[in-house]
Amino acid sequence: MTTPLLIDGLQYCRWDRQTLNDLRIGGVTAVHVTVSYWESARESLTRLAEWDRRFETFPDLIMRVQQPQDILAAQRAGKVGVFFGFQNCSPIEEEIGLVEVFRRLGVLVMQLTYNNQSVLASGCYESRDGGVSRFGREVIQEMNRVGMIVDMSHSGERSTLETIELSARPIVISHANPSSWHHALRNKSDQLLRELAKRGGLLGLSLYPHHLAGAGDCTLESFCDMVATTVDLMGIDHVAFGSDLCVNHPVEVVEWMRSGRWTKGVDLGEGSKSTPGWPDPPAWFKTSRDFPTLLEGLTRRGFGAAEIRKIAGENWLRILRDNAVSRLSQEFAAPASSAA
Amino acid sequence: MTTPLLIDGLQYCRWDRQTLNDLRIGGVTAVHVTVSYWESARESLTRLAEWDRRFETFPDLIMRVQQPQDILAAQRAGKVGVFFGFQNCSPIEEEIGLVEVFRRLGVLVMQLTYNNQSVLASGCYESRDGGVSRFGREVIQEMNRVGMIVDMSHSGERSTLETIELSARPIVISHANPSSWHHALRNKSDQLLRELAKRGGLLGLSLYPHHLAGAGDCTLESFCDMVATTVDLMGIDHVAFGSDLCVNHPVEVVEWMRSGRWTKGVDLGEGSKSTPGWPDPPAWFKTSRDFPTLLEGLTRRGFGAAEIRKIAGENWLRILRDNAVSRLSQEFAAPASSAA
Repeated sequence: MTTPLLIDGLQYCRWDRQTLNDLRIGGVTAVHVTVSYWESARESLTRLAEWDRRFETFPDLIMRVQQPQDILAAQRAGKVGVFFGFQNCSPIEEEIGLVEVFRRLGVLVMQLTYNNQSVLASGCYESRDGGVSRFGREVIQEMNRVGMIVDMSHSGERSTLETIELSARPIVISHANPSSWHHALRNKSDQLLRELAKRGGLLGLSLYPHHLAGAGDCTLESFCDMVATTVDLMGIDHVAFGSDLCVNHPVEVVEWMRSGRWTKGVDLGEGSKSTPGWPDPPAWFKTSRDFPTLLEGLTRRGFGAAEIRKIAGENWLRILRDNAVSRLSQEFAAPASSAA
Repeated sequence: MTTPLLIDGLQYCRWDRQTLNDLRIGGVTAVHVTVSYWESARESLTRLAEWDRRFETFPDLIMRVQQPQDILAAQRAGKVGVFFGFQNCSPIEEEIGLVEVFRRLGVLVMQLTYNNQSVLASGCYESRDGGVSRFGREVIQEMNRVGMIVDMSHSGERSTLETIELSARPIVISHANPSSWHHALRNKSDQLLRELAKRGGLLGLSLYPHHLAGAGDCTLESFCDMVATTVDLMGIDHVAFGSDLCVNHPVEVVEWMRSGRWTKGVDLGEGSKSTPGWPDPPAWFKTSRDFPTLLEGLTRRGFGAAEIRKIAGENWLRILRDNAVSRLSQEFAAPASSAA
């Protein structure tokens, strides 16, 4: 018997046996993990090599996901599938060819911007958003070709609307919530979410405290009400999870995420002077082990089993399939039987 | 009907439609191409991206070889299989994890040194050879694990003998000749070649003029006599081709190969002040189109069809299989039928 499909559309934890095992205990079939925030191409190789090492160290717990079908293989094996993403375009530097290189290394998702303006588009913290750049158009097309999902979680509204339009494949906002529920620079307008859904895209609902109404005090009931409203807005095929779970990290890591090397000062991001560090999570979602609680909340809120299956995993699997169908992915797939 | 297997164990040409098509005209099933000489990790990504572009541009001519069985797929498709190699360890810098990263990008072969001492071992142009370093032992073990072939073509004698001993999988000298036939720093002693064969390794016989008795004036008959002597020395299962064909390049490229960025002067390598550039090839082996001439020469010299099949392709395929059997290669091989 296999467990039901559960795909978490974004996590960035300090990965050790415990945080990886928590995924399995929580019933997570596959997780999209962040490899780079501000890292260069070269530095991203080191981040990827660290993941190679984890696969070597914890073969009983995790499996590499290069293709959507690898998630189903992980499910059958009772392991957690792991797929890679960049939260920014810094790893491709200004070289179009690196999109394919990193896709070959298993990077299935890339954000075009992280809060700030990038060489591709603009970020959600910029006061002006000039939309998608010349290079940005080239990169979107190349990501479509090789089957790397465009993620606009940290991008500006205009850049995101343009990208939804420009991309030949459905894009994602892997981790954010509707700003109509909780106003935050990182949350998204109803108009944008409608456009995203209209083009087949997906919103991964976030459990990160700064994205929640009431932050760490947000109740499970309020969150599940928001899921229902978002499903009404976007349709059941376009809503999923992207927990943005960040556990086990020292404070330096949230500082790196926000300030990278782009400022000599300190960017507090969604925090404030009084709360500069990691925000406190809601009591009902502190680790990956809390996914069953979340799913129970949806059941209590009145979602049916088929609806929950879509939100929990099937929608992410579809998006991965919509994006991964490319010459490149065919090329990756060699007959297992003839493995030399 | 498929053509017989013909694998050239090293080329470094200026690749355009013509040089790629020459491979097909010459009946080459697969070719080991050099990606980097002195390039860093980052620069090697650009070199690899250039190859991605070639596969995209010339899908009618070439196919990527990630696994030994891909060579047979190329043969069935009537295309030329291409596999990657580094002629030096500069791309892994001093990071053990980059061995797997580059193996995932399709680098199936790496030389531990290129003429000079490296962080792994010593080169054939050094006056003293201290053998394999601490890091060198780690890298050999890691290459064995991920299925990347150790190549000692440009290494010193002591380093090579130690590596033959240390490597758990058969190693190669992808492009060189016996120094008993033609004395050159790059050619190899009979003792070394015997040890190589004893451990299952392979010598790819070189057509590079500096490795030939008589250089560009070497006759096909003399070369084929040398093949026979080498087979007597090493056994029919351990001799193959590694033409070291370098065509179409401007003189700057041979200067880069020899001097890289390690000297402010000019290293003439196997050349001399009077012949500093590309050496003139023998009339009977100027391009990949000349392989049939070479095979005819072997037939005239008395080699049987089964022997020629081994020298031409089967021995290289076996070495690739001996090295590629690893957890990693299993992981690359996903069922084609379920490609999403």
